[in-house]
Amino acid sequence: MRKIALLILTVLFCLHEGRASEKEPCASCHKQKTPGIVNAWESSAHAGAQVECLECHGDRYNADHSSAHERKIVTAHVCARCHAKEARNHFAGKHGIGFRAGRACTRNDMKTDKGCTDCHEKGSLIPRHEAECSSFLTQSPEMQRQGCLVCHMVENRCDACHSTHSTDLSIAQNPAICSTCHLGPDHPQYEMWESSKHGILFRQKGRSYSPDCAACHMPDGTHNVSEGITMGLAGQEYSPDVRERERDKMLKTCARCHSKSFAALNLKDGDAIQRQSKALVEEADSIIRELEKEGLLLPSPAARPAHPLYGNTLEIGAQMLYENLSRAEALLFRMKKFYYIISYKGVFHQNPDYAHWYGNAPLKLTLSEIRSEAELLKELKRLRDRVNNLSALGFSGADSESGTDKESLKTALRKLKERLLKGELSKDEYEKQRAEILKGYGF
Amino acid sequence: MRKIALLILTVLFCLHEGRASEKEPCASCHKQKTPGIVNAWESSAHAGAQVECLECHGDRYNADHSSAHERKIVTAHVCARCHAKEARNHFAGKHGIGFRAGRACTRNDMKTDKGCTDCHEKGSLIPRHEAECSSFLTQSPEMQRQGCLVCHMVENRCDACHSTHSTDLSIAQNPAICSTCHLGPDHPQYEMWESSKHGILFRQKGRSYSPDCAACHMPDGTHNVSEGITMGLAGQEYSPDVRERERDKMLKTCARCHSKSFAALNLKDGDAIQRQSKALVEEADSIIRELEKEGLLLPSPAARPAHPLYGNTLEIGAQMLYENLSRAEALLFRMKKFYYIISYKGVFHQNPDYAHWYGNAPLKLTLSEIRSEAELLKELKRLRDRVNNLSALGFSGADSESGTDKESLKTALRKLKERLLKGELSKDEYEKQRAEILKGYGF
Amino acid sequence: MRKIALLILTVLFCLHEGRASEKEPCASCHKQKTPGIVNAWESSAHAGAQVECLECHGDRYNADHSSAHERKIVTAHVCARCHAKEARNHFAGKHGIGFRAGRACTRNDMKTDKGCTDCHEKGSLIPRHEAECSSFLTQSPEMQRQGCLVCHMVENRCDACHSTHSTDLSIAQNPAICSTCHLGPDHPQYEMWESSKHGILFRQKGRSYSPDCAACHMPDGTHNVSEGITMGLAGQEYSPDVRERERDKMLKTCARCHSKSFAALNLKDGDAIQRQSKALVEEADSIIRELEKEGLLLPSPAARPAHPLYGNTLEIGAQMLYENLSRAEALLFRMKKFYYIISYKGVFHQNPDYAHWYGNAPLKLTLSEIRSEAELLKELKRLRDRVNNLSALGFSGADSESGTDKESLKTALRKLKERLLKGELSKDEYEKQRAEILKGYGF
Repeated sequence: MRKIALLILTVLFCLHEGRASEKEPCASCHKQKTPGIVNAWESSAHAGAQVECLECHGDRYNADHSSAHERKIVTAHVCARCHAKEARNHFAGKHGIGFRAGRACTRNDMKTDKGCTDCHEKGSLIPRHEAECSSFLTQSPEMQRQGCLVCHMVENRCDACHSTHSTDLSIAQNPAICSTCHLGPDHPQYEMWESSKHGILFRQKGRSYSPDCAACHMPDGTHNVSEGITMGLAGQEYSPDVRERERDKMLKTCARCHSKSFAALNLKDGDAIQRQSKALVEEADSIIRELEKEGLLLPSPAARPAHPLYGNTLEIGAQMLYENLSRAEALLFRMKKFYYIISYKGVFHQNPDYAHWYGNAPLKLTLSEIRSEAELLKELKRLRDRVNNLSALGFSGADSESGTDKESLKTALRKLKERLLKGELSKDEYEKQRAEILKGYGF
Repeated sequence: MRKIALLILTVLFCLHEGRASEKEPCASCHKQKTPGIVNAWESSAHAGAQVECLECHGDRYNADHSSAHERKIVTAHVCARCHAKEARNHFAGKHGIGFRAGRACTRNDMKTDKGCTDCHEKGSLIPRHEAECSSFLTQSPEMQRQGCLVCHMVENRCDACHSTHSTDLSIAQNPAICSTCHLGPDHPQYEMWESSKHGILFRQKGRSYSPDCAACHMPDGTHNVSEGITMGLAGQEYSPDVRERERDKMLKTCARCHSKSFAALNLKDGDAIQRQSKALVEEADSIIRELEKEGLLLPSPAARPAHPLYGNTLEIGAQMLYENLSRAEALLFRMKKFYYIISYKGVFHQNPDYAHWYGNAPLKLTLSEIRSEAELLKELKRLRDRVNNLSALGFSGADSESGTDKESLKTALRKLKERLLKGELSKDEYEKQRAEILKGYGF
Repeated sequence: MRKIALLILTVLFCLHEGRASEKEPCASCHKQKTPGIVNAWESSAHAGAQVECLECHGDRYNADHSSAHERKIVTAHVCARCHAKEARNHFAGKHGIGFRAGRACTRNDMKTDKGCTDCHEKGSLIPRHEAECSSFLTQSPEMQRQGCLVCHMVENRCDACHSTHSTDLSIAQNPAICSTCHLGPDHPQYEMWESSKHGILFRQKGRSYSPDCAACHMPDGTHNVSEGITMGLAGQEYSPDVRERERDKMLKTCARCHSKSFAALNLKDGDAIQRQSKALVEEADSIIRELEKEGLLLPSPAARPAHPLYGNTLEIGAQMLYENLSRAEALLFRMKKFYYIISYKGVFHQNPDYAHWYGNAPLKLTLSEIRSEAELLKELKRLRDRVNNLSALGFSGADSESGTDKESLKTALRKLKERLLKGELSKDEYEKQRAEILKGYGF
């Protein structure tokens, strides 16, 4: 009896599946193979609106999959066909320059809508300058995929923040979703917010009481996350009118809860601390450039693996690497990419601990260490110069660069002295032979 | 029709506002300008008890605001008029020495009830010693406001923990509120607690199951947060009877859940680890002092910007800065202010990862680095001494300090040798001229 | 009236307690002394199943406690009597080698079921090699207890994860319970997971939506936490067949949500990054070994406190310490134990920020610093050699090792020169006396 019931159910199920596959040829098969994504889609707003697999994944579908999956990865440009306003805003802000921000090479990305001409002149293998990222180029393909592109794909991927097959907005609206990228030593905005008053109150009392990331950076739901930001990457300066325009936008947001004058004072403090911190980085920059000019970096750029873009030269600008550096540069990297950024972003995110203890304190400590390293390298040089002088003065015959002669001379003089000490030579014989040995070496 | 309704409503609203302003002259205006704070107050216990704006913000109110807002910031002393017991306890504990703990200058604080005499003798601009904080004095006003005073204002500001216009106790009772200050490299008590068993169970099962910050540090609701603490700032030693008295208090708190003997053992371990860690810091201290005595710090205090309190001397005590240091001192700062503190506070907050990996391990690693740095600086000195000796012995005419003479001598000898090698001089002429050149330089 | 009621209640209570104590002799007393643990037990499944105190805490109970409490600490072996399968699995995985993983000495643990023979040959005080842990041996007993054993007791203690007297499974199933040990610089798996997509979605939408620690590492409730792990401690290599077998297990788990090919690609990336990162550590290893061979480490192992197992030799393998190191080694320790581990575990836990910014970047920065340090030490050696050569060549009479003679010679020459400059000596007398002084010193 039970077996018959099961049989009937199976037949009904297959008929249903068959019907489904007329409209939607993928689900019947993928329901077995990848049930999770099919289930997610089925309960999504997309399914409700009859936006089906091929709509996003490409229209060159064949039953034998011969040319299917040419759009395995659904890029932002696909989403843009329906979500035009969100896409336009997304592309206009910093999230829209995900690749170019990191200037990463799309050849390492999984298949995208973008062609080679994003980075290369048509027909050329040489990357255009603006598409180059030395940090990216020095990584293994695995680290490019797992370390760089997970975040820097944001330009092309709406599912960096949104869920992939469901349309559950609560996921993209969870501020924690920002933490995958906005975390850690380079720019811990999520952590700053989390332990700021804003974050504490948000976590306790919710969205209506205190702001999360989107409240300030996506006001009124805009997808241009750079609205209200008054400076570029690493504090790069905007023109005064852009700065003023964007600051006004942010103050409008702050004014939902605070008096404008209070907010303005705090943001102005952030501006000042950005400039003050940058001046410390610039001092470190000039110490390093001076050391390089004097040939004192250890090892020198000439003695290190070549920089992928600039070769055996010092690079401490936008294309600075975190590998193949001297100690002084390794310290500078931390100042520039970690502590400087944190010192002012800590203020803009209302977190005194980040501004001061994670930013300002290590920024100044590390500058001290760079100054100290420079003193050490200069002291070494002074000593080297003095030894060179001594060699030149007293021992002009002994080339200070080739130690071999000196080593054998030293050995000869030592052996002679041993013979003197053993009594094999008289003092006079010793003096005579010593003079001859020295003469033989050009003294 | 709708317009008439609106008109009636507006009239009714104004009448209501008018009535309100008889009792409370601020709200009618601020309800438009800063609605958030008025709303918060209206639903507060203060409003219920008819504690209105002027009660806290000052009584010298004029309708034209000419002398209003003289108490824009409501200090703890204002709150103390009604909340006397809480204030008394607050001032008695470490939170009550917020400014003086950081010894910050109130001139940089926004207007407070405190006069200049907190830090200055009447009529003097010179700060009294106990009001001085070198770290504070070396900051820009912006970093003082955003980095120092946000936390060090706690002495004077109840709203460091409590909400400002509402009286929602759940905010001050949320342990996360402690994290704004008790976070990060200098004293991450919140993070220690959060990943300790106490914190994990509290977050899962709540206040009745496991303790949060206040359960141990504000037992029975006391506002003296130093009850049960057996040592001062940075482990500063208390007298044995005070230690015993305070330990007993803490054990009473522990005994709500644990056996006293178990708790006592664990706290005693914390005491021991504090002493052991301090001994490592003291070893580092004495290495640095020895280096300074021998003039080996790079750069030396004499060659650095002056310390704001002590001038061009070594300061590695309570007024130690984190800027303008030698590398050895920069390492010491991290030991003293970060790893030492974390090693024992990690134990007192039941967090093995903090005690060991964030405290003990970097404490010992950094001591190794300081010892290594000292060896390097001593080795440099030995080399310098030997070069000085060589100069004095063989080349007493050449002043080892002025390189100019030696440089020109070196150049003269090289040019002479070139002429020999080019065949412009015979060996004899060369020898003769060489001797003359040397004689000319005092050899 | 009320007093009579109280009396009756007290009598009834004592009768009840008396009855209870027939079955369970501990509770009546401990209910007064340690009510928390008795309450926890009373509402536990253990109480329901009549598993009472002596069942776990030992059967040698006497009313006078003379031999009671011989099993104050309930070890995993006690739990194993009822929970055999869980215990068997626990002992089979890495959690089952808690002590031996850290190779800690059980003599420092509180009383356990384990005898001395775990670490010592019977009758010997010398620890067997496999029971040794230099890091543990160099700690104070307090740090061993508070820093090492809290985590490394996991082998023997089910209550490392489970609650102690209650049987509330929600505690052991809370992923935060893993964070007490799997946190911080050495292996921050909890933090990696928490800010990964997995962790973000789990925290928002719960267990049914996204995996926590146990979902991947204890699939189907197994207590062998090493199922599906393809490498040993610090990436130690397993045989190819073990690797394949364990990888298949993990892929089966991933396939609950993801396509196997997607999961396999990501895990393979983790494998590759582990190998690439290890190669960087090995380069650093060989730099350090080369420095040691040339006697350049500052201080050298010979000049440092002895390693507790190997004496005054360089140890940068499994028994490497984080104390008594040269700077180069201190840097290596951080590469080896922190950044290397994080670089690949970050990938396996789907966290780009950890893989890249907490792992890869400091790994490469620190390698740069080690290379730079090596160059510095070699430059110092070159200078030392050249000064030695100069001493040998020109001043064979002056022993470069004993500075005393040179100091007094220098002083003598200076005093002589002063007399010349004061006009106390003629140039000729000066030359004559100078020659005599030099002769007197063997020149």
